[in-house]
Amino acid sequence: MKLSTRNLLSGTIKKVEIGNVNAEITLEIAPGIEIVSVVTKSSAKRLELTEGKTAYGLIKSTDVAIAVD
Amino acid sequence: MKLSTRNLLSGTIKKVEIGNVNAEITLEIAPGIEIVSVVTKSSAKRLELTEGKTAYGLIKSTDVAIAVD
Amino acid sequence: MKLSTRNLLSGTIKKVEIGNVNAEITLEIAPGIEIVSVVTKSSAKRLELTEGKTAYGLIKSTDVAIAVD
Amino acid sequence: MKLSTRNLLSGTIKKVEIGNVNAEITLEIAPGIEIVSVVTKSSAKRLELTEGKTAYGLIKSTDVAIAVD
Amino acid sequence: MKLSTRNLLSGTIKKVEIGNVNAEITLEIAPGIEIVSVVTKSSAKRLELTEGKTAYGLIKSTDVAIAVD
Amino acid sequence: MKLSTRNLLSGTIKKVEIGNVNAEITLEIAPGIEIVSVVTKSSAKRLELTEGKTAYGLIKSTDVAIAVD
Repeated sequence: MKLSTRNLLSGTIKKVEIGNVNAEITLEIAPGIEIVSVVTKSSAKRLELTEGKTAYGLIKSTDVAIAVD
Repeated sequence: MKLSTRNLLSGTIKKVEIGNVNAEITLEIAPGIEIVSVVTKSSAKRLELTEGKTAYGLIKSTDVAIAVD
Repeated sequence: MKLSTRNLLSGTIKKVEIGNVNAEITLEIAPGIEIVSVVTKSSAKRLELTEGKTAYGLIKSTDVAIAVD
Repeated sequence: MKLSTRNLLSGTIKKVEIGNVNAEITLEIAPGIEIVSVVTKSSAKRLELTEGKTAYGLIKSTDVAIAVD
Repeated sequence: MKLSTRNLLSGTIKKVEIGNVNAEITLEIAPGIEIVSVVTKSSAKRLELTEGKTAYGLIKSTDVAIAVD
Repeated sequence: MKLSTRNLLSGTIKKVEIGNVNAEITLEIAPGIEIVSVVTKSSAKRLELTEGKTAYGLIKSTDVAIAVD
């Protein structure tokens, strides 16, 4: 499957925190660089997201804002 | 200024493409790892985004979807 | 590839309009029911989106608002 | 009221699951085709979303990504 | 029509800039307080957005990030 | 820090409701005009969001839809 989504960041799941409705996933995409994702709990279960597993963070380019110092 | 936004990825601007309304910014956040951002042209000018400059990619955790193979 | 994205609507591409930066894709997901997507032009080319092709519309559940009369 | 939002999908509410903060709404927009929406619990109550009711799913065109096999 | 969208900011259109694909709308929601919206050009035409007209800015609560000094 | 985000609405925090995972923040941006934001609970704690504090609501221009009567 090919996606229009521009950013596909490959990484390793470092942490999975399951709430009532949502789950918070921490993905290490490079040594020391992590991204945090919030998905529904049902998606986390369906994808069997667990620590140590390889996964991708998908981010639309319009959802990336830019800041400068 | 402190932000509620969970993901602040520091990087170096690799490419700036200016369109009529939008601008596409490529940010290298780790060796060989790039993210693409689309902001308005006026924001790109206001922030003086140019190649080689240090910048941050800001991404809300709810805007990060997860995929697994 | 499995996605956390809850909504994957399968359909047939009815129209592809290419702009300078973006492309507008019309997808028929059921007889007479269409959804419109805006992706970057480069994504439209990379995915070779053309009329008549089968494609999926991906929508995060938090991006669906509800209205009632 | 007229909306800039391009996608207004009319349907019937099939399921309403209320969490602590959010509510998950399943809307059937065509026979066998459902979309899932997450709104705040307070919005679900204010709009009196209940099974069997007619409702619309509202989705901005920039929030629809495209995938192809 | 009632919307799940939490933020409905009523205002007066101060500026409409039409691009090839998108349009940028500036809405004054209180004396001296403006918000900027980008919608597709076709939506701007369909809604007949012109300076001086009353309009609403609709913003999902999950799309509002918070910053503090 | 300068942001590409077009809408930075300065205000006073009127209400902070903390859930299990998320927090709902009400910000008064002009007399009688409030916006509601949902951030993660951890962000609300990290930014020490409390009633009476000055804060900014940050909204991307593409996340503002327009409605007219």
